[in-house]
Amino acid sequence: MVDLKDVKEAYERTKGFINHTCVQTSRTLNSVTGANVFLKCENFQRTGSFKIRGVINKLLQLQEEEKKKGVVAHSSGNHAQALSYASSVLGLKCGVVMPRNSPKVKVAAVKNYGAEIVECENNVKSRVETCERLIDEHGYVLVHPYDDEQIIAGAGTVAYELINEVKNLDFIFCPVGGGGLLSGTVIAAKGLLSSVKVIGVEPLKADDARRSFKEKKLFPSRYPDTIADGLRTGLSFLTYSIICEHVDDIITVSEHEIVDAMSFVFTRMKMVVEPSGAVSLAGVLRSPCWVKNKNVGVIISGGNVDLSVFLDGWHKKIAEKKNL
Amino acid sequence: MVDLKDVKEAYERTKGFINHTCVQTSRTLNSVTGANVFLKCENFQRTGSFKIRGVINKLLQLQEEEKKKGVVAHSSGNHAQALSYASSVLGLKCGVVMPRNSPKVKVAAVKNYGAEIVECENNVKSRVETCERLIDEHGYVLVHPYDDEQIIAGAGTVAYELINEVKNLDFIFCPVGGGGLLSGTVIAAKGLLSSVKVIGVEPLKADDARRSFKEKKLFPSRYPDTIADGLRTGLSFLTYSIICEHVDDIITVSEHEIVDAMSFVFTRMKMVVEPSGAVSLAGVLRSPCWVKNKNVGVIISGGNVDLSVFLDGWHKKIAEKKNL
Repeated sequence: MVDLKDVKEAYERTKGFINHTCVQTSRTLNSVTGANVFLKCENFQRTGSFKIRGVINKLLQLQEEEKKKGVVAHSSGNHAQALSYASSVLGLKCGVVMPRNSPKVKVAAVKNYGAEIVECENNVKSRVETCERLIDEHGYVLVHPYDDEQIIAGAGTVAYELINEVKNLDFIFCPVGGGGLLSGTVIAAKGLLSSVKVIGVEPLKADDARRSFKEKKLFPSRYPDTIADGLRTGLSFLTYSIICEHVDDIITVSEHEIVDAMSFVFTRMKMVVEPSGAVSLAGVLRSPCWVKNKNVGVIISGGNVDLSVFLDGWHKKIAEKKNL
Repeated sequence: MVDLKDVKEAYERTKGFINHTCVQTSRTLNSVTGANVFLKCENFQRTGSFKIRGVINKLLQLQEEEKKKGVVAHSSGNHAQALSYASSVLGLKCGVVMPRNSPKVKVAAVKNYGAEIVECENNVKSRVETCERLIDEHGYVLVHPYDDEQIIAGAGTVAYELINEVKNLDFIFCPVGGGGLLSGTVIAAKGLLSSVKVIGVEPLKADDARRSFKEKKLFPSRYPDTIADGLRTGLSFLTYSIICEHVDDIITVSEHEIVDAMSFVFTRMKMVVEPSGAVSLAGVLRSPCWVKNKNVGVIISGGNVDLSVFLDGWHKKIAEKKNL
């Protein structure tokens, strides 16, 4: 099982390859919540999310023979970008299986970092089969986004940095989808600071982790349509086990609460955060009685948000002015 | 005339009242420009722009009698928010004259910090007359946004912090509207580091500062409709004199270059920057031959941008999902 030692080793191993992201505070946020809130900004991480931490930790520990063969994953999100970028930095071949109907902007981001895109149909069966075919053909090593101890240890370096920078945290709020980040967070946090309470936060529309945690029974994800697209996946048995053993609670937030948290960070703190990344702050904003006068760490997991609406609006503004 | 000593004193006087804002870097930005670029992030400053620095420096130096009477300004932008916030922190009365048709969100922001809003017609004459009436009636002290040595010394603390943190800068790019920030920047920069070149950047649509600088003759602003709403004002004789004497060049950027710079910061660096704040980066992005292999400081002056387009888009997304 992963423990603090693994996280420490991951930290030492990966620190030359990742950003030590900053911790941001806001007087308005403290006044709204009655707490001292510290946002750990993985939206400022390379490739725009925390995912690079686990991936780099994994790739650095491959056997020489595996490195020669290359790596593969099926993902249309932040994991794909992280794997593509990390492979190019380390000089490994990388294949990424993406559904044929993936947003062009996401395909471009993955391609841009250097991975070969292999298209598949938009269902789990086709994803898995395409992946398996590539592994058979090329000997690629599969890099799972969270069902992997090395990935989890890497994800734990977020909380490791946070607690080493902000001592005396009473709480850490962390988004939960597949559970890799929450597992790493709770291992690092409880290892460094046994008194800290770790709270997972999940979209109400994708509450499989909460139900699994409460009923002590692993529920699969039903691929819900929450706007927090990074949190649609379900726990694996590995992350489920870690979370059930160590996490203090899992709470849920509504879709509008997620957008309100994004808006708060955007308007008051001038940061771009993706819906999945804002879920943890949404959890703090709806928990005023727990957090009053406490020191609260919040893991902002990423900032890869679709900006076309925003940018189209600005270019339209200029065009309108020209017609005046 | 303002000099480095005034900036140093302003720094010591104001540092308990402002954020020491961070300097952000981006590997992609360095690769696009061929330079080492350091963004000084005044979008993370209290009230969302650098304006608080000059205002706090000014208010702290008022006579006791003036403090009892209170302060006034006419502005619908960042200066108004800064004055309102600073007055409330220091316990001074504050009136802000705003045109009747000012955006509600801006009026709300100013009101929210505690100032009394006094409406006027949407023209310079009405603004000035309303201001003068308030000064006559209440004895308020007028706080000009830039035609004031204490305001300029306060604005200079941005570059003072930047150069103390990032040594060996070859260039500093800085937005220019009324010229207060550029004046403070050039005084601090040349005082600390005589070799640094200071470049003002202005929207092409509001190029009065460039023309004044080039022709050595003070041109008034024609209140142009650039999206960089913070840069529509013209130089005062004070800022004109400082800029002509010390600044190395003033360059211009197009409206679309401004939006492209905002987009870059938004998508790649996950920060929210207002058009006026992105003008300086737009200047760097269009100057690759100058800045290649140089250390370039860029002053991002603020982040108060109208987000309704962006946020409406997100809430609409949720609504659409509900209809599925």
